[in-house]
Formats: sequence, C-alpha cells, structure tokens
Amino acid sequence: MSFFDQLKFDANGLIPAIIQEQKTGRVLMMAWMNRASLETTIATGKTHFWSRSRQKYWMKGESSGHTQAVKDIAFDCDGDTLLIQVEQIGAACHEGYQSCFFRSVREGGASAQVTEPQLLSPEQIYGKK
Amino acid sequence: MSFFDQLKFDANGLIPAIIQEQKTGRVLMMAWMNRASLETTIATGKTHFWSRSRQKYWMKGESSGHTQAVKDIAFDCDGDTLLIQVEQIGAACHEGYQSCFFRSVREGGASAQVTEPQLLSPEQIYGKK
Repeated sequence: MSFFDQLKFDANGLIPAIIQEQKTGRVLMMAWMNRASLETTIATGKTHFWSRSRQKYWMKGESSGHTQAVKDIAFDCDGDTLLIQVEQIGAACHEGYQSCFFRSVREGGASAQVTEPQLLSPEQIYGKK
Repeated sequence: MSFFDQLKFDANGLIPAIIQEQKTGRVLMMAWMNRASLETTIATGKTHFWSRSRQKYWMKGESSGHTQAVKDIAFDCDGDTLLIQVEQIGAACHEGYQSCFFRSVREGGASAQVTEPQLLSPEQIYGKK
C-alpha cells in the first residue's frame, strides 16, 4: 500500500507539515502541503508547500535561498499530519530567526517574549523592497 | 499586549498545537486548541484540546493517565501555530507508541515503515473494550 493511501488530506486537500531540523531537534516551522506538493517534495528532496493565502505552490527558499533538504518524512497515527526532518540552509523564518517559533508566552498568557536571536533582517534575506 | 492578541485562530476558532517532549526533542503529536482550551492549558499546566471529530474538550491523558505537563508555549511568526514543550507521562500516542509519528515513508512514497517500538498495546492503556 502506498503511504499516500494512509494519509488524510482535509476538505481543501491539505495536510499540515511540521518541519524539524534533524541535527538539533528544533521545530522550525509548520506549513501546508497538498498531494502534489508532497509528491514534489519526495521527488526533489526539497520541501514544497501550498500557500493558502497566495493559492500557489512554493518551495521553501525559492526567494531566500534558505532551502530545506529532506532527511525523513513521518506521519502520525491518524494520518492527518506530517513530520519532516530536514537539513536547513540558513534561517527557516522569513523574519530572520532560526525557527519561526521564536516567541514564548510569559506571565500566564499576559505577554510574550522573544527567546532567540534574530540572525538576519528580512532586508538581508530578501533585499530592500 | 496579551499574547492572545498575537494569535490567529482559524475560521472554526482553532489553532494547531505541536507537542514536543522537552527533554528529548521528540515531536509527540499535533492536536487542535481553541481559545478556551488554550486558556485551560495555561491555567492548569496540563494540555487541553478541542476534538474536531467529537466536538468536545479533552485533556490529554484523561482516559489513559498519560498527561502532559506544560513547560513552555511558543507561537510562530504568523501567530497561527503553537509549539508546546511538555513533560510526557507514559506514551503520547493512543496506539501505544512514544510519539504519534511512529511511521516513516520509504521507497519514494511507495511504502511506510514503523520506526519505533510499541511500548504498550491500546488494551493496556485503555483496558479491553
């Protein structure tokens, strides 16, 4: 049985993909894939997603060069979430942090705090707009 | 500004929560929260979710005893995904594996393989049904 038959895509044909840096265990980001972007991810060895806001395919790093080389693709017991181990080139977050999860909750939800250094500015990643 | 104001819940009032075991870095599961279940998670220090299939609140471990003590709650740059560090009691997966992500893709998507031992059977966790 193909593993695709064990996956459940949602009503929009999408499945969330958690991206984890294999060597550090850091969770870098979460984005959405459809079947075609997952097939392209497997075929090319680089992560490809479906943008819900822009309604288009995108390859991580297509603008920034900060691509993700796929090391492992796992899926959960319900078949409705992917966990992809990658080797991350550069910073995963478009805001210049290593991980998109660079803020944590403090004071019982009353505030949030940045928990890691910003490695690059968005201007350094994408150029001045 | 409350961190709740930095979050974006979806059209159904939900936000995905990635659960990571703090001491090992293992991603254990992904489940959905609404604002009330997130507030309860913060107030009690144990993870609470909203079940989309059962349309009800649930605390992780309420049946199995395999609860999750919250150590950190982070959120991503877009404010639409949570990453929660926990101390996991017992096995996270209802199928008896440490992580729900116990299967990985092999052979370019042609098959899948179990990648970790099953610690308990569902019957051992939940009793015979």
